[in-house]
Amino acid sequence: MNLPHAEVETPVFMPVGTQATVKGMPQHLLEEMDARIILGNTYHLYLRPGVERIRELGGLHKFMSWNRAMLTDSGGFQVFSLNDLRKVSEQGVEFRSHLDGSTHFLSPENSIAAQIHLGADIIMAFDECTEHPATHERARSSMEMTLRWLKRSKDAFEAKKSEVPWTIGSDQFAGKTQSLFGIVQGGMHADLRRESAKRTVDLDFPGYAIGGLSVGESRELTREMIEVVLEHLPKDKPRYVMGVGYPEEIVEYAALGVDMMDCVIPTRAARHGLLLTSEGRMNIKNAKYAGDQNPPDPNCSCWVCRRYTRAYLRHLSMTGEPLGGLLNTAHNLSLPRHNEACTLFY
Amino acid sequence: MNLPHAEVETPVFMPVGTQATVKGMPQHLLEEMDARIILGNTYHLYLRPGVERIRELGGLHKFMSWNRAMLTDSGGFQVFSLNDLRKVSEQGVEFRSHLDGSTHFLSPENSIAAQIHLGADIIMAFDECTEHPATHERARSSMEMTLRWLKRSKDAFEAKKSEVPWTIGSDQFAGKTQSLFGIVQGGMHADLRRESAKRTVDLDFPGYAIGGLSVGESRELTREMIEVVLEHLPKDKPRYVMGVGYPEEIVEYAALGVDMMDCVIPTRAARHGLLLTSEGRMNIKNAKYAGDQNPPDPNCSCWVCRRYTRAYLRHLSMTGEPLGGLLNTAHNLSLPRHNEACTLFY
Repeated sequence: MNLPHAEVETPVFMPVGTQATVKGMPQHLLEEMDARIILGNTYHLYLRPGVERIRELGGLHKFMSWNRAMLTDSGGFQVFSLNDLRKVSEQGVEFRSHLDGSTHFLSPENSIAAQIHLGADIIMAFDECTEHPATHERARSSMEMTLRWLKRSKDAFEAKKSEVPWTIGSDQFAGKTQSLFGIVQGGMHADLRRESAKRTVDLDFPGYAIGGLSVGESRELTREMIEVVLEHLPKDKPRYVMGVGYPEEIVEYAALGVDMMDCVIPTRAARHGLLLTSEGRMNIKNAKYAGDQNPPDPNCSCWVCRRYTRAYLRHLSMTGEPLGGLLNTAHNLSLPRHNEACTLFY
Repeated sequence: MNLPHAEVETPVFMPVGTQATVKGMPQHLLEEMDARIILGNTYHLYLRPGVERIRELGGLHKFMSWNRAMLTDSGGFQVFSLNDLRKVSEQGVEFRSHLDGSTHFLSPENSIAAQIHLGADIIMAFDECTEHPATHERARSSMEMTLRWLKRSKDAFEAKKSEVPWTIGSDQFAGKTQSLFGIVQGGMHADLRRESAKRTVDLDFPGYAIGGLSVGESRELTREMIEVVLEHLPKDKPRYVMGVGYPEEIVEYAALGVDMMDCVIPTRAARHGLLLTSEGRMNIKNAKYAGDQNPPDPNCSCWVCRRYTRAYLRHLSMTGEPLGGLLNTAHNLSLPRHNEACTLFY
């Protein structure tokens, strides 16, 4: 993908940077591990420090000093996760902040406006993430609303896209624009997934995401839905499965033809002492590692595995030292690149 | 100082690495800021992961993958800070762990044995940190016990020093040994400080520390005690004031002839959003920084100040993001080197 801020080879796994930071990782260490694209979460940035603030400061790239590519989600998924704190209507979603209970409203129009003002390279249409399980009737009704919201997202994008806050007059961005991706829904119903894919492609986006997966269904079902949808998405445009996954899933879905994935697992697991390794998951807090001088993953050549031992990482996790979270995160994010068993990703 | 693991220019400010980590900082970033010597705290390492464990793993340097110089304290200061959890006798200090309440005993002999087995380049004699305020009588009695404990520390060191766990047979360490420093006490009484200095020098150590300062006294008194003691310490041996201080104190004491200092202020303040700058202390959480695109300290050329803005650091601190602690720490530790107003230190 030739994006305004970076060229990104696919398939790519994108580290999640919820609040304008990949938790605990300085930007230059992300660059050193050759991360080309990271995520930001519109819901969190909308609440803190606020979209208008980031726009004033020159956009998300400048705000966090990240000069490579970024993608923002629409905020929809986070809002739908609020459960009791939200109310969905045709117009959009009213929700209460998880921070202070204040009331807010997110719609296709203002999600897109927010994302334009944040200024990521790739922004996502505002969709409804269908809950799981959902009956065929409910999943259809949700899918139809998402299709109407995709159209409204696209119209809002066309109307506002000139307001992106990238450095004015910079040659780097001459003629370059944000890309708005559509999102396929349809619950766990193959016929709806097919229909959603076709009608989303009819709306014509430069890239397509598959949403509403990894919401509690079996992994077989995830894979089946991905296969069903991929068949109907154009091969010459990026195809993005949102919110997956474990290393073995990443390899599996990439083999199916998925170009982009993102997940909090590598970063969140790291903070709880869970290392992803070529030999499976490793709870580094386990007592058996207390005297273990081996690298976290003997098949990994990341800077953490080259320098530190399991015994040291265990000590850091057991004592709650912040360096533990950082080292575990750096390893987990490096794994796709440095693990000999899995060389597909950044 | 030509230490086994590094040459260290003085005056030097030593970052504190309590639990075998300078909180949040990966070792290679400490190296990149040219830190040559860091501290470890024997009390904390004794409790977790345990001295015997670290000895088995090849010593503290190898355990934490830090190949430059280290200094450990005796554990005395931490134990004296436990207040209700300790009982002092001529033999040593019985204390209860702040972690699980278990009972332990620290004496000159086993503090020195522990420090030999941790294997720092410089280790500290086991002293009693006299409380403040203390009457002349109480300060004398405490000082006398410290002098007896210094002698016992030295005897224990001579008896055990061959047990240092540095890599056996490595040419790097041929003929090189740990250095045991003495510590001057005497409360806030100039005559006792003088006497303590002279009698400590009579015991003949390769370096001398001034302990029992920064315990609640005025800064004038701190300075007076330092001046009184320095007069009686040999100029050709390292002179170390323990537990200071703020950047302006560091400059002031270095000008008096102090060679070594350490303090948790730069690292602890960083985690609470307090930046040390050439223009004084800055609480980065202050609302006025929310839109401030300036570097944290315009006179600083550290990697944090070159890349990030006050607005971004404020956002990280307000949202409790771990990167905030890391960036604040990296700046605060870099300050002595990169701040144009203060070029004295590492």
